[in-house]
Amino acid sequence: MDFYEKTIENKEIFRGHFLNLKKDTVRLPNGKTSSREVVTHPGAVCVAALTKNKEIILVKQYRYAISNLILELPAGKLEKGELPLIAAKRELTEETGIIGEDFKSLGYIYTSPGYSSEIIYLYTCTAGTKGELCLDNDEFLEPVYIKLDLALKMVLDDEIHDAKTQICLLKIAKLISEGRLDV
Amino acid sequence: MDFYEKTIENKEIFRGHFLNLKKDTVRLPNGKTSSREVVTHPGAVCVAALTKNKEIILVKQYRYAISNLILELPAGKLEKGELPLIAAKRELTEETGIIGEDFKSLGYIYTSPGYSSEIIYLYTCTAGTKGELCLDNDEFLEPVYIKLDLALKMVLDDEIHDAKTQICLLKIAKLISEGRLDV
Repeated sequence: MDFYEKTIENKEIFRGHFLNLKKDTVRLPNGKTSSREVVTHPGAVCVAALTKNKEIILVKQYRYAISNLILELPAGKLEKGELPLIAAKRELTEETGIIGEDFKSLGYIYTSPGYSSEIIYLYTCTAGTKGELCLDNDEFLEPVYIKLDLALKMVLDDEIHDAKTQICLLKIAKLISEGRLDV
Repeated sequence: MDFYEKTIENKEIFRGHFLNLKKDTVRLPNGKTSSREVVTHPGAVCVAALTKNKEIILVKQYRYAISNLILELPAGKLEKGELPLIAAKRELTEETGIIGEDFKSLGYIYTSPGYSSEIIYLYTCTAGTKGELCLDNDEFLEPVYIKLDLALKMVLDDEIHDAKTQICLLKIAKLISEGRLDV
């Protein structure tokens, strides 16, 4: 089967501070046309930093889009031209004040491939020395240290709901159990 | 610390076939105002159906938003007023032709809480008898049966990138290893 959808027309709907929206017309594999509404996103990073006490550093943050205060791993958007690993180091320090060491990739994910170009590069690292906390003007969050085992239990018991956070914690647990990651 | 952001103004930017976009003005915890660009989404479901041969049923699908053909678990949006479990049963059969049995919840996730209200309810089930495949007009996808162990390896080796799919597979593996899920 052929699956490819060819762009016929490209229409910008909204160019925002945070996200852009376009509505394209595409040629489907069966020759018909359809429209595709797409959020274009610069990409992001997410970091699971582990302390010497086997704690994971999460942040508590109010998320307006879901009207909820939730626990997430430190994360943020890529700046223009920024490499994911550099962004991961920057975001961890900005949001938690911790300088990460020994970064390892946990791969990348598409969060919502049905309507968003967003890709998140995932990392784990060890928590090193204290650096300088540096939040954006409109960012209010609080670091929370939780034992890795408890954080993982919170994922399985449906108490942590952020997708990127669930993935990093589940992958770390699996890699540790297979001897592919030391803590 | 107070984290809550209060809506001051609500502005609809776009009402689409698939998604809606609003740009709200909010009062921040420090008393200042800021804007929040938010995709409003009806919610979705995702289903990991396991066959008697310990295969998982994935679908191969072109995703225009990421310009890529990817492997995902069957998933889809909630229809108006539809319960997640009902939607999960419907989507599995529509996309794979398989009638699921013995559905169990794997919790729910927020895919992109920074800018989208999307919530996905996750399920696992056993693959039962053949039902009627029924794709949407603009939907082109192909079911792919993969051994659970191999699918999990593909997640860890960064060959499956869809967030909801990674989470379901990782959770299933973890629950099986803890004796909390039979296959």
